[in-house]
Amino acid sequence: MSNFKSLPGFREFYPEAFAERRFLFQVWRQVARRFGFQEFDGPVLESLELFKAKSGDEIESQLFCFEDKGGREISLRPELTPTLARMVAAKGNALKRPIKWFSIGDNFRYERMQKGRLRCFTQLNADILGEAGPAAELELISLLIQLIQGFGLGKEDFFIRLSDRNLWMLYLEAQGFESETSKILEIVDKWERMPDEVACEKLSAIAGDRGEALQASIGGFLKVSNLAELSNAFKTVSGGADMGEALQARIDDWSTLLDGFDAMGLSGFVEMDLSIVRGLAYYTGFVFEAFDRAKSNRAIAGGGRYNNLIKKMGGPDMPAVGFGMGDVVLADVLKERGIMPKFVDTIDAYMVIGGEAERAVALADANALRQSGFSVDYPLKTSGFGKQFKMASASGARVALIYGSEELEKGVVKLRDMTDRSEEEVPRERLILALRDRLR
Amino acid sequence: MSNFKSLPGFREFYPEAFAERRFLFQVWRQVARRFGFQEFDGPVLESLELFKAKSGDEIESQLFCFEDKGGREISLRPELTPTLARMVAAKGNALKRPIKWFSIGDNFRYERMQKGRLRCFTQLNADILGEAGPAAELELISLLIQLIQGFGLGKEDFFIRLSDRNLWMLYLEAQGFESETSKILEIVDKWERMPDEVACEKLSAIAGDRGEALQASIGGFLKVSNLAELSNAFKTVSGGADMGEALQARIDDWSTLLDGFDAMGLSGFVEMDLSIVRGLAYYTGFVFEAFDRAKSNRAIAGGGRYNNLIKKMGGPDMPAVGFGMGDVVLADVLKERGIMPKFVDTIDAYMVIGGEAERAVALADANALRQSGFSVDYPLKTSGFGKQFKMASASGARVALIYGSEELEKGVVKLRDMTDRSEEEVPRERLILALRDRLR
Repeated sequence: MSNFKSLPGFREFYPEAFAERRFLFQVWRQVARRFGFQEFDGPVLESLELFKAKSGDEIESQLFCFEDKGGREISLRPELTPTLARMVAAKGNALKRPIKWFSIGDNFRYERMQKGRLRCFTQLNADILGEAGPAAELELISLLIQLIQGFGLGKEDFFIRLSDRNLWMLYLEAQGFESETSKILEIVDKWERMPDEVACEKLSAIAGDRGEALQASIGGFLKVSNLAELSNAFKTVSGGADMGEALQARIDDWSTLLDGFDAMGLSGFVEMDLSIVRGLAYYTGFVFEAFDRAKSNRAIAGGGRYNNLIKKMGGPDMPAVGFGMGDVVLADVLKERGIMPKFVDTIDAYMVIGGEAERAVALADANALRQSGFSVDYPLKTSGFGKQFKMASASGARVALIYGSEELEKGVVKLRDMTDRSEEEVPRERLILALRDRLR
Repeated sequence: MSNFKSLPGFREFYPEAFAERRFLFQVWRQVARRFGFQEFDGPVLESLELFKAKSGDEIESQLFCFEDKGGREISLRPELTPTLARMVAAKGNALKRPIKWFSIGDNFRYERMQKGRLRCFTQLNADILGEAGPAAELELISLLIQLIQGFGLGKEDFFIRLSDRNLWMLYLEAQGFESETSKILEIVDKWERMPDEVACEKLSAIAGDRGEALQASIGGFLKVSNLAELSNAFKTVSGGADMGEALQARIDDWSTLLDGFDAMGLSGFVEMDLSIVRGLAYYTGFVFEAFDRAKSNRAIAGGGRYNNLIKKMGGPDMPAVGFGMGDVVLADVLKERGIMPKFVDTIDAYMVIGGEAERAVALADANALRQSGFSVDYPLKTSGFGKQFKMASASGARVALIYGSEELEKGVVKLRDMTDRSEEEVPRERLILALRDRLR
């Protein structure tokens, strides 16, 4: 046993675990590139100010932050978005729009550990910047759907809950709560896990004797599941008055977006569900989460529109929408369904070597075969043929290459197919070609 | 301009820079797998004690270390080896030997920045554990050579300087300096950059009036370039006495290793050069560095044998040898020689869309084509055909798919080959097949 352990909430990836990780990243990269997204990366360590600028001073309590040897207040990143915003802001208007970028990287949060939540996790981030209309949401959410489909999950396994922070603002404004929207949305964010009395109490603290009415109106809004119900909900709170321009514009965007999902054949994956408000105040429009249908409280991914952040970071006024998908929940979902592939390392050829005289010849061929792109292994120590064949089996090699004294006297190598045990003798100078044929 | 900057010594990878990074990693992975190495990964954050246990308390001055919110003394890793040793030690004897592992990951050092040296760099580590004989060095150094060859560099570009800390120990012991070896090797490590008088002064501080003689004997040893000269050097300092057993064993290992390079056809890449002692005292045998021939002081990679570390970390007594290759110097070397490829992002198809009516059809096809594995992009905003063809060009698409009202009336899509400008009309239901044919 080792004297040292990894820190709580930090994982180690032995080769079998790493192979799963590589699989997740491969699918992520493959699907993101199909959508024309370009990969980028930023530092995992940034100035503490950067994260405070995005999320407020409170964020510090969840950060791995410290003072470096040069007296700088720095922090490991809890998420990628501030770095992305900084990088885009730095290039100003020089980047061709729309910017469609993705990144796969580690993030660090000092928080209480629980199932599906670690202190270091890897996240795929995908963002579209420079497009204000719902065409960006359509593109991004269809990417999100294909990303999850890419792992073999379908309509029966997951769906997207689509919501809108702007609709909430308008809805609360229509009832005269324009200055309390943030506080109220914090309550809505926890609605599902909150007993009615507690919600009523909290809302009354904000709305006074109108608390109970507000609770009823929020309850009604949360049941909205299509645009007709949405219009009705607004009519109810506005006493039947016509929609304002802002509301009409939002409903037009919703309509465009839902039509887009229809056109793409993705309607079955998307549900209007206003209970999603995403805790963070920086979202400015559509917000969404991808949910596991088997465990309704488990989000596989989440994101939304954040039109103010790039400017806040000193950049141009640039609309943006993005999401993040972590590796921990995703891997759990795949494993629970038994669809995480089993990865077995294999190589092309394992060399079985007679003795020291034959070793020199085998070494020459090993280097040449590897140079030609084959994966080849051989025993570092001389041992009996029986043991070496066991090692050949364990290596997952497709063929064993036998370097015995008899073979080498004839100028051949014996090639044994490890699947059907068939053998053939191959002249050494034809080895690369013979192996290429055999492995095809 | 952004209000925020990245920290000094930390890099950002915009998509063009990231493509170079991906290329380095791809070649590293491809070649390591050809040699039967398995990929693993460990956390970038570890307990401070882990790094002190390997490198001594002095290491703290170069670390990004701090106290976390739970009062733990922790640090970003300056190198991967302590984590590797911890992980191997934790599994004790359960891992099948030889263990051949590699990893690609970030490392962090708080140090003065200079050309080729940053505060965060990515390193490939490759290690063989469980094999004490020079067959492990042969396997590992032949991997190192093919790794560098994999980027298009040859004999005329780089070579391996091979040395041996054990030989130095025996050489200094033969002269009665067994208790001063570490101090003397620290001086040898800086020999090339040290004026003769300074070396003499420093050696005299250790060896008293024998300092000058020691300097001469070190100077002689540094000139050794083959096994015959090596034997002579030992004869000189031992007054012609026969070799001890330990020395004979080392010379046998050298002989086996050099014969191995010969057998593999790699002799032209390897030079015996005892000036390489590697600063770190934890090395226990062969040490080596890969050097750029163009700038003789620039090491592309370095490593050696460290047989005591796994046991020190609480694991079994397990011999080990490994090396690290950083991304910064490697990328510099490739760029200076003009052999860093230029990466241009391309996609399979860009859609040119007539109007809103045609957009719905294009969206349906975009989703279906992407689902089938094609990379497809389209304009998020409706605009004129001319502008859209420009965007198609800029996207690097192989074909443009034209969704005009005329085409859709006929139930076809016009496919324009962007290389030769040829066009054909393809029935929509045959689009996937037609695109597959065209892109083959």
